[in-house]
Amino acid sequence: MEIATPPAHVFDAAVALTPAGIDAYSGRPHAAYQNMVGPFGGVIGATLLNAILSHPARLGDPISLTVHYAAPIADDAFSVIARAMRTNRSTQHWLVELQQSGEVAAFATAVTGLRRDTWSATDTRFPVVPPADAVEVTAPLPHAPWTSCYEMRFIDGGPDVPASDQHPSQSRLWIRDRPNRPLDFLSLAAISDAFFPRLFIRRPQRGPIGTVALTTYFHADAAQLNAQGTEPLLGVARGLHFGKGFFDQSAELWSTRGDLLASSHQMVYFKE
Amino acid sequence: MEIATPPAHVFDAAVALTPAGIDAYSGRPHAAYQNMVGPFGGVIGATLLNAILSHPARLGDPISLTVHYAAPIADDAFSVIARAMRTNRSTQHWLVELQQSGEVAAFATAVTGLRRDTWSATDTRFPVVPPADAVEVTAPLPHAPWTSCYEMRFIDGGPDVPASDQHPSQSRLWIRDRPNRPLDFLSLAAISDAFFPRLFIRRPQRGPIGTVALTTYFHADAAQLNAQGTEPLLGVARGLHFGKGFFDQSAELWSTRGDLLASSHQMVYFKE
Repeated sequence: MEIATPPAHVFDAAVALTPAGIDAYSGRPHAAYQNMVGPFGGVIGATLLNAILSHPARLGDPISLTVHYAAPIADDAFSVIARAMRTNRSTQHWLVELQQSGEVAAFATAVTGLRRDTWSATDTRFPVVPPADAVEVTAPLPHAPWTSCYEMRFIDGGPDVPASDQHPSQSRLWIRDRPNRPLDFLSLAAISDAFFPRLFIRRPQRGPIGTVALTTYFHADAAQLNAQGTEPLLGVARGLHFGKGFFDQSAELWSTRGDLLASSHQMVYFKE
Repeated sequence: MEIATPPAHVFDAAVALTPAGIDAYSGRPHAAYQNMVGPFGGVIGATLLNAILSHPARLGDPISLTVHYAAPIADDAFSVIARAMRTNRSTQHWLVELQQSGEVAAFATAVTGLRRDTWSATDTRFPVVPPADAVEVTAPLPHAPWTSCYEMRFIDGGPDVPASDQHPSQSRLWIRDRPNRPLDFLSLAAISDAFFPRLFIRRPQRGPIGTVALTTYFHADAAQLNAQGTEPLLGVARGLHFGKGFFDQSAELWSTRGDLLASSHQMVYFKE
């Protein structure tokens, strides 16, 4: 009897890298995750993290990941170079560069580390929201193909769902990969950047924007991500300040059962 | 008539770098900013930012700064290498490495950029707190010499001031350089790391901790920092999650008149 191999998930195809020498890999943007201009940044960040997680010298699981979106990424092959900057007993610091045509188009730094059981506490509360199946799925945005790779159910602050009066730049949504895919560090890293730009939630006027730098902190270990499986995550994002050409975003990603899996922060350029 | 040159402020001495070739500088830790083990991380971050701000190719003012504390820094000379990873029309991305004995002990990435007048809004509120001169100054901590370089007035969550019941990991304080020094990007970067570890606010038990990575977003331009002068900043810091060996901290720094100058996030290792 032959057992058919299930086809790889489109996300795995999008973050795939081919080894190309010591510390080096090659990859290319995937059509499914195109954004308005260039690829969806979340998948670029996950691809850079994938270079670290694939590296033979890697120690432990992701603790923090900072991604710099330095220039537009062309729809063409790219090189990825991952270097362990310093390795300690339980933590490791990384630099990863994405190059096209000999120039750096994106780069990331990361901390990986060994997790141990310690004292534990969460000082923020899981929001009071309706369960995912009680919230309508938002239609993908035709001008942003990557949005069809996620099932998004907005409680507030979505494309067709107004933000709350008390929090005019806040979005709350249930989100997961479409089609379903078990959660791991790579998909969690990508989902950390899957919130729509706070500026577009905050005011109706549209204009050019682009994330310049994004940092994600991983609060969960692999066992917690495994326990989440393919269930939807609750995401909450808001901005603190918009002005003089830049705005920030902070976000939390919660498991269905109410564990804080990741928090994420970014600074975004806007034109006017 | 001779006019005496005022002596350099101890902070300027601590972040000072000597040019040592293309992209390269040399420096060393300053005794005034020693922490329990090694130098105060805020001044190391400011020193790395100083390499960027001193660089002849630098474009614009700091927008974001991420500092990796990769290994202990010895009380000895260090090299700093600053490289513009990518320069765009209005933004620039940087990598800065601090090396001792041929190894990377710390490194930073940054975005600098040109500020322009745009639409502006702040979606978080200046906290209701007593003015600085109505709050008692906290005595420096003898085991952490750097604390004597800051005037800190804790409203809650300080060494001798309990945290609020609703926010057990939150600190709010008025803070400025001691002696007084006009605010600039370097001192603002250092103050972003001047909050005591959230773990020590959250529970009385002490143990080894160390920041692994810190990101600061600058919301203010140089004119706003100049306007602040030597007046105290209001700092607010809190943690979201503690567990499995790491905890996070998020902080805001406000001008005396209520402008959000910076927000900052970090991930911290703790032993147990």
